[in-house]
Amino acid sequence: MSEPSKISVVLCGSGFKDGSEIRESVAALWALSSKNIAFQCFAPDAPQADVINCYTQKTDPQTRNMLIEAARIARGDIKPLNQLNHDEFQGIVIPGGFGVAKNLCSFAKEGSKGSVRPDLQKILEEFHYQKKPIGAICIAPALIALAFKNKNFRLTVGKTCEVSQEIERLGHKHKECATESCIVDAQNKIVTTPAYMDDNASLAQVFQGIEKLVAEVINLTF
Amino acid sequence: MSEPSKISVVLCGSGFKDGSEIRESVAALWALSSKNIAFQCFAPDAPQADVINCYTQKTDPQTRNMLIEAARIARGDIKPLNQLNHDEFQGIVIPGGFGVAKNLCSFAKEGSKGSVRPDLQKILEEFHYQKKPIGAICIAPALIALAFKNKNFRLTVGKTCEVSQEIERLGHKHKECATESCIVDAQNKIVTTPAYMDDNASLAQVFQGIEKLVAEVINLTF
Repeated sequence: MSEPSKISVVLCGSGFKDGSEIRESVAALWALSSKNIAFQCFAPDAPQADVINCYTQKTDPQTRNMLIEAARIARGDIKPLNQLNHDEFQGIVIPGGFGVAKNLCSFAKEGSKGSVRPDLQKILEEFHYQKKPIGAICIAPALIALAFKNKNFRLTVGKTCEVSQEIERLGHKHKECATESCIVDAQNKIVTTPAYMDDNASLAQVFQGIEKLVAEVINLTF
Repeated sequence: MSEPSKISVVLCGSGFKDGSEIRESVAALWALSSKNIAFQCFAPDAPQADVINCYTQKTDPQTRNMLIEAARIARGDIKPLNQLNHDEFQGIVIPGGFGVAKNLCSFAKEGSKGSVRPDLQKILEEFHYQKKPIGAICIAPALIALAFKNKNFRLTVGKTCEVSQEIERLGHKHKECATESCIVDAQNKIVTTPAYMDDNASLAQVFQGIEKLVAEVINLTF
């Protein structure tokens, strides 16, 4: 039983419409920093599925790279996802953002018929096999549901909705949860919180939920 | 003496090297949200001075718009800076990031000989004239120093450094300050905190300093 030394955080761009949700990502890093837990950010060194102009909400014809954009959140301290060695970390956290459902897996296009990027799929399996906790924020629980089909995890994306129904179709149990709280599946070491799945949530509520998620992830590292 | 109803937050892109520092911006919005203070984000509808690849730290040849990029932090809820009517707000907060010194003023290129974007200069003068508080984070105090030359404000950018010397050349008093604290010039209603002026600061410290800054800005609205 040793102190958790480091948590890995997986990003996939920088923005709620096409990458990692910025505020959720910062909240996760802040919660780790507040507990004096070291963290390392990672992102795939690959193009985003798309680029959305977040002012007009329209698709932008340019291309952007997940790693390069996520470096904005990480202040340059980020590594390519293929360098994530599970042996170096006691847990893994995936913030939300629509990029998670478009860049890290195909949930946005294919729902419960989708799949996770093979590199991330392998990483998640390694963490889970080693009984290291996985924290998933906002839409990221859908990715966890895809990565571990029919495992009967207890997961939340907030209220019952189309996404929660897809999660149940994937062989998991969806639990309703308030934005400022989180759901802990202690047996499987999976922690989830709805964050901005509720568009009307306040930023303070989002932070509360993510702070609790990070605290539970840390608890589960022991 | 009425409750503060709304604080304006001025952004200029999304990223520590070419826009608003993401974590500082989120910290300011979170501190406001935690105190149940409404906020509205603004950014100039104009091109950034440059685009920096935050992974390689090299200049990128593309162009990006301050308003469109800042919309990533604001989750789309942002207005062009020229729509900022000081009568609708009880105070103004400017997060840091190198974009502040390149996009919002010419401090990065010209130091104490620089100037502030005319639209922002006018807005800041209006807030100050109406005795409404101004909060400036990280490098943003240098912009405040430029906007109000020889006013002898008490400002901080953390430790004594090249930037603090330029601030003194502009006719202000630089006060050293820890990252987790802030400097209050109550007479002039200016509050400043160093944030990531210290590259080695922890995110928790940065949040502490910004939380204090926001609390002082709110106090000064009364």
